[in-house]
Amino acid sequence: MKLETILEKINGTAVPKGKKVAVAFSGGLDSTLCIELLRRIYAAKEIVAITIDVGQGDEEMGEVFAKAKMLGIEPILIDAREEFTKEWLSKAIAANSDYNGYPVSTSMTRQLVAKLVAEKATELGCDAIMEGSSGKGNDQYRMHNVFKLFAPGLEILVPVRDFNLTRMEEKLLCEAWKMPVTEQVIGGDDKTLWCRSIASGAIDLNQEISPDVWMWMTPPHLSTDHSIEVKIEFEKGVPIALNGEVLPLDLIIQKLNGIAGSRGIGLIDIFEDGIMDLKSREIYEAPAAHVILKLHKDLEQMCLSKSELQFKKGIDAQWAYLVYHGMWYHPLKAALDAFIGKTQQVVSGTSIARLYKGNIEILSRSSPMSLFYPEIRSIKSDSFDQRWCAHAAKINGLPFEILAKRSCHVEALV
Amino acid sequence: MKLETILEKINGTAVPKGKKVAVAFSGGLDSTLCIELLRRIYAAKEIVAITIDVGQGDEEMGEVFAKAKMLGIEPILIDAREEFTKEWLSKAIAANSDYNGYPVSTSMTRQLVAKLVAEKATELGCDAIMEGSSGKGNDQYRMHNVFKLFAPGLEILVPVRDFNLTRMEEKLLCEAWKMPVTEQVIGGDDKTLWCRSIASGAIDLNQEISPDVWMWMTPPHLSTDHSIEVKIEFEKGVPIALNGEVLPLDLIIQKLNGIAGSRGIGLIDIFEDGIMDLKSREIYEAPAAHVILKLHKDLEQMCLSKSELQFKKGIDAQWAYLVYHGMWYHPLKAALDAFIGKTQQVVSGTSIARLYKGNIEILSRSSPMSLFYPEIRSIKSDSFDQRWCAHAAKINGLPFEILAKRSCHVEALV
Amino acid sequence: MKLETILEKINGTAVPKGKKVAVAFSGGLDSTLCIELLRRIYAAKEIVAITIDVGQGDEEMGEVFAKAKMLGIEPILIDAREEFTKEWLSKAIAANSDYNGYPVSTSMTRQLVAKLVAEKATELGCDAIMEGSSGKGNDQYRMHNVFKLFAPGLEILVPVRDFNLTRMEEKLLCEAWKMPVTEQVIGGDDKTLWCRSIASGAIDLNQEISPDVWMWMTPPHLSTDHSIEVKIEFEKGVPIALNGEVLPLDLIIQKLNGIAGSRGIGLIDIFEDGIMDLKSREIYEAPAAHVILKLHKDLEQMCLSKSELQFKKGIDAQWAYLVYHGMWYHPLKAALDAFIGKTQQVVSGTSIARLYKGNIEILSRSSPMSLFYPEIRSIKSDSFDQRWCAHAAKINGLPFEILAKRSCHVEALV
Amino acid sequence: MKLETILEKINGTAVPKGKKVAVAFSGGLDSTLCIELLRRIYAAKEIVAITIDVGQGDEEMGEVFAKAKMLGIEPILIDAREEFTKEWLSKAIAANSDYNGYPVSTSMTRQLVAKLVAEKATELGCDAIMEGSSGKGNDQYRMHNVFKLFAPGLEILVPVRDFNLTRMEEKLLCEAWKMPVTEQVIGGDDKTLWCRSIASGAIDLNQEISPDVWMWMTPPHLSTDHSIEVKIEFEKGVPIALNGEVLPLDLIIQKLNGIAGSRGIGLIDIFEDGIMDLKSREIYEAPAAHVILKLHKDLEQMCLSKSELQFKKGIDAQWAYLVYHGMWYHPLKAALDAFIGKTQQVVSGTSIARLYKGNIEILSRSSPMSLFYPEIRSIKSDSFDQRWCAHAAKINGLPFEILAKRSCHVEALV
Repeated sequence: MKLETILEKINGTAVPKGKKVAVAFSGGLDSTLCIELLRRIYAAKEIVAITIDVGQGDEEMGEVFAKAKMLGIEPILIDAREEFTKEWLSKAIAANSDYNGYPVSTSMTRQLVAKLVAEKATELGCDAIMEGSSGKGNDQYRMHNVFKLFAPGLEILVPVRDFNLTRMEEKLLCEAWKMPVTEQVIGGDDKTLWCRSIASGAIDLNQEISPDVWMWMTPPHLSTDHSIEVKIEFEKGVPIALNGEVLPLDLIIQKLNGIAGSRGIGLIDIFEDGIMDLKSREIYEAPAAHVILKLHKDLEQMCLSKSELQFKKGIDAQWAYLVYHGMWYHPLKAALDAFIGKTQQVVSGTSIARLYKGNIEILSRSSPMSLFYPEIRSIKSDSFDQRWCAHAAKINGLPFEILAKRSCHVEALV
Repeated sequence: MKLETILEKINGTAVPKGKKVAVAFSGGLDSTLCIELLRRIYAAKEIVAITIDVGQGDEEMGEVFAKAKMLGIEPILIDAREEFTKEWLSKAIAANSDYNGYPVSTSMTRQLVAKLVAEKATELGCDAIMEGSSGKGNDQYRMHNVFKLFAPGLEILVPVRDFNLTRMEEKLLCEAWKMPVTEQVIGGDDKTLWCRSIASGAIDLNQEISPDVWMWMTPPHLSTDHSIEVKIEFEKGVPIALNGEVLPLDLIIQKLNGIAGSRGIGLIDIFEDGIMDLKSREIYEAPAAHVILKLHKDLEQMCLSKSELQFKKGIDAQWAYLVYHGMWYHPLKAALDAFIGKTQQVVSGTSIARLYKGNIEILSRSSPMSLFYPEIRSIKSDSFDQRWCAHAAKINGLPFEILAKRSCHVEALV
Repeated sequence: MKLETILEKINGTAVPKGKKVAVAFSGGLDSTLCIELLRRIYAAKEIVAITIDVGQGDEEMGEVFAKAKMLGIEPILIDAREEFTKEWLSKAIAANSDYNGYPVSTSMTRQLVAKLVAEKATELGCDAIMEGSSGKGNDQYRMHNVFKLFAPGLEILVPVRDFNLTRMEEKLLCEAWKMPVTEQVIGGDDKTLWCRSIASGAIDLNQEISPDVWMWMTPPHLSTDHSIEVKIEFEKGVPIALNGEVLPLDLIIQKLNGIAGSRGIGLIDIFEDGIMDLKSREIYEAPAAHVILKLHKDLEQMCLSKSELQFKKGIDAQWAYLVYHGMWYHPLKAALDAFIGKTQQVVSGTSIARLYKGNIEILSRSSPMSLFYPEIRSIKSDSFDQRWCAHAAKINGLPFEILAKRSCHVEALV
Repeated sequence: MKLETILEKINGTAVPKGKKVAVAFSGGLDSTLCIELLRRIYAAKEIVAITIDVGQGDEEMGEVFAKAKMLGIEPILIDAREEFTKEWLSKAIAANSDYNGYPVSTSMTRQLVAKLVAEKATELGCDAIMEGSSGKGNDQYRMHNVFKLFAPGLEILVPVRDFNLTRMEEKLLCEAWKMPVTEQVIGGDDKTLWCRSIASGAIDLNQEISPDVWMWMTPPHLSTDHSIEVKIEFEKGVPIALNGEVLPLDLIIQKLNGIAGSRGIGLIDIFEDGIMDLKSREIYEAPAAHVILKLHKDLEQMCLSKSELQFKKGIDAQWAYLVYHGMWYHPLKAALDAFIGKTQQVVSGTSIARLYKGNIEILSRSSPMSLFYPEIRSIKSDSFDQRWCAHAAKINGLPFEILAKRSCHVEALV
């Protein structure tokens, strides 16, 4: 592969020149390349780099700014950590977020980043927005939707996709243009507080996962023999305290990633149905998410009625589907949140779980909102007499009495 | 508590006398008492005891017949093992059977037993059917429905409920009447191949589970350090081979209960919403079910399309709801089975999993029906060019362009 | 049938004596009988008759108080008209209320009445609540649920059911006891603003409906040849103006019952699945409901997105199911209302319809919240170019390319 | 607009030359132009015109062949009338086909045509398939999906879209090239047995519909004063006889279009959510579909249980969604058909309806499979005693007793 071929592809593609362009800058290979393309190819009048902190951690944020310095840009930093945990993760927990086994993470942050960039770009009078998605993934769809809603008049530039660049070509360009690249070239990698994705879809069907890819998680067989207990207090569906200490949600998640990860918890290895209906094998680690979601669901089974639990399954599934598909800001998603929010008014209580080599065992639960009243079911209960059930069973069985009346057709039923 | 008080309750209740009564005889406390009540209280003209083998195991079946002998009855034995695995469990696996975390087990066998007893009772010209359910549980509803469908003209007798007996009173009666009781008195216990229930609803909120209650399962921290690999082959949604050996489904399940149980797999500790909408805490062990259901779902994620997977969630949830609620023979359940059966035509393939201290880790998957084609998503794919996505993203994003046109209302969306 | 037999049944049933009893008094046969039973049989210490006005109309309310005077009681009158239209009917419209074709009407008022009676009974220190439901209908279930929630400590008395009285026996008792009866004896009849039910379930399969049963509706072939136009303005899902005049919802409905009824609109003749799963044939008239619900749905199709419309169908169906089944105050219903309420924020606009001999033809629609932008779809549109669809169709069709790869199985698909 | 500009657009677009191309030929403007483009622009090696008869009627088929003659081609005729009614329409009726009020018609025929063309093209060794869709409609997506499944290796040519032609430009080309054009230029129009669409999306928001656009329907106010009765017999969900005469489904539909159309039945005027999520106003006429679907639904309410009816709503909605979106051959659709087919086993019976000026009034129903047993609900019924309901209501109300226990929170429910 020659540099000339790549440049030919790029130069053969029409681009808008001389614009003021806002670019989502994460410091990765893609967004680094964006900066240089804006200079060399788009001849941008002005580059507005915007960096969003959604809790990547101090280390990663330091690297972003180091790289920015090398590139000679000064990104505008928007701290979205509180918005992300308060407005997004708390809703994800309430919705038992689960799409094919993935607790939707990057699916959310990409949309939050897109919204903040769109708003800032509009505020600063930019003509266009650029982002670094490649053309075979989900993120381009997610960001496009949000850009169109929050900055409808701005042009959207997605150079990697629109110049049809491969990952290897991107790397060659960066080298040729003397740009800093610290990332591995194969597969993407994305981390939020909530879940870290490993090699985004670049894992083969039966490829073994090397034990050194994990950041938080020690695989079960390598993890300590010592179990540990954690106590989590939920208020209206959201964790508010860990081991008796009231903490902001991001801190609870961070601490749990450490604790639960050390006990072998958090591995996800699934087939995931992408936005374009293509399956990929995805590997994630999400220790805190696993613990929180398990305890949240258990608390719901204690505090919500049977009908709510049964119906909410469909609501939750639709929620995860929409969020994954880039529809966070869709009115259907808002209506689902209204439903979910109503149910969560009573999802308060405290659970204790023992974490051990990949296992989360619930040891105790308590809630002032519990609907668990074993005394009613007890034979000594005054509130109902078992003999009543003779009649209740007859009434409940009426549909079967009626079906029996066309009983020559019973065999058609099974 | 005096015997007289109990007998007073019984004698104060109107009962049909002098009938030919079929009774479902399992050898437990309830059905043992039924026999004696039929003799002493109902003055039955003839007692037709029927015992259904749904895979309780040789030991338990031996006890049933030993007890029958002591009671002086000769139960008619109906071997339903094949029907149970072929017609019931295979459907449960295809439906990823899960009601509140419980893979529905006794929910099924009670209905199968009821159908076989109803048919035999009808064939033998009985006037009534008796069964031993208590009045605060789910089984009375399940059996009632099935009796009404398959033996609509027969009277249904449920003496424990109808005489308003407590478990302790039942025991006193048995002692007074010199009947053999081998069971523990507190809490029920029911075992099928698929799942064993422990103390049916008699467990308190935060009561610890004693490690000696398990039959198949060694708790994770007590289980061996040696992991084990299992290979399961599915054909049209149903396991047909274990570790390379083609076996009937009941044998696969039996073997897996041993193997997976020894690796700490199978614990279920949930709040369960009973038929009458009362919550109970339920403890089950189901090692084979855990392994089979996990691999089955994973294989479905490989072989079914995104739309099928998303929609089938609602179908599966409804399936488990109906089966739990005693509606196996309801036409809606038959229609769900038709849907599920159609999807399972392509759920064939082989999975290998490593079992270790409560963990089921999938190591490899293969299927001739797989929809996983990573080569299409690859950047080198001929079948689609990433630049197409620029247009696809625009078309896909049209709803957001339209929503933006009433953008004064964007804030109302979230 | 002799009076003695009836009195024997009554006297053979245990009843609580000497209590302070609140009774829902509607002036009908059932509640009239309740008063006398409280005096003669229950030997009530005090009778608290409570009458709820949910918009039955002046004439009917006048009759209620005339009858009360004859009975020597002074019912407490609670005016619930505003609560009924503001809190109940507006939610029903937003939910496109439809259960088997019935827009749920009495289903609502019975629950509202039960709540208000329960609250008043509690406030006044009653020991028990009495209501006049018979034992084979839906209302007993609806009222029971609400009583148990709002007056959990009070005894519930349902004498017609509990004494096992037939309608004819009720009438005989009233005659024997010299009580005023103005009602027809066969079949019930219930009217609210929203919908009037005729002979509640006492209509045979192919029984013809006499043209003189209608209160609001002139049957289409007897109705005037002159069509009429109506203009309705909706704000957030609720009608606020009729023909340009801003009016409270109850007045809009009243006027529309007259206008639309005169144009042959409003007939409902359906099989209805009762709470106990028994089917009845039900005849209703609901002219205003037909017009409002048709225009509301049409306005939703204009202002809600495709995804909302598709998903809301399931929400609306569940809403009607719950309300019909006496679960207005269930938390699942509250969560559905939250979902629906969120969607209705944009359901505002004005529609004009022509009413003619049973037909409702929409002539024009307008809304500031409309999502109908034909200019985008137009070939002249700048916002998208039809050539983009070549790529969009390819991406959209990827699942079929993948399915084709296992094409030996295409025939299994259909 | 000059011819040169149009030709410039065409010549500026890369096309495959010298191929053997199958083209779906309907005789309309689009497919006529296709033939000439294949000759002049694509320099096709061979043109295989294929015409599918899905019941357009003799007149229309005559015109197709007359036009073919003028064009000098001899289309292969495939008679798909039986397949369309037996395999497609019968499923649509069973599914109560309704997408936004549209009974899905062209949505189906386009996919059937695509399948037959793809199969024939493959059989004859073509290199490519051409179809005449424009680029802003739904059909291109529907046909693309089916082509990709049944002829995965063939190139798909959609010249109107790919050359970015407007309807007016198409007309100019045809004139310039001396091709016969008999169609109106504005708006599309498509007719099947089942439903005729008028001006496909080219109707403005409040544009009045001229009374001369209708083919089958006389508007209600112009229709005869004489009502007419029709009797339809259904077997397993499908009409098999009209007015006592056993007839094939296509004949029943044809006759009903005449009869019901003459009585003012069949108008559809809706907002329709297109595949690309754009709303259009659509006008259809479908007299037979209105009658058949109303009677079919009513018969289902008689023969299906409450649970089936409630659940099938979601199935039917998904069915119509998939079929509209070009997913007839998707495995999810096949699974829905399996569900629906199972339910239809008992949907047999006969209904009589009176048709009058837009009204369909059901006069009588009968079915050997009916679940309507009013005698059970009757007070004289032996099969249940109303006093049982006292207990059934208590058991049924247990969830509310439990909710009352956390009654400080009742107010949170509403």
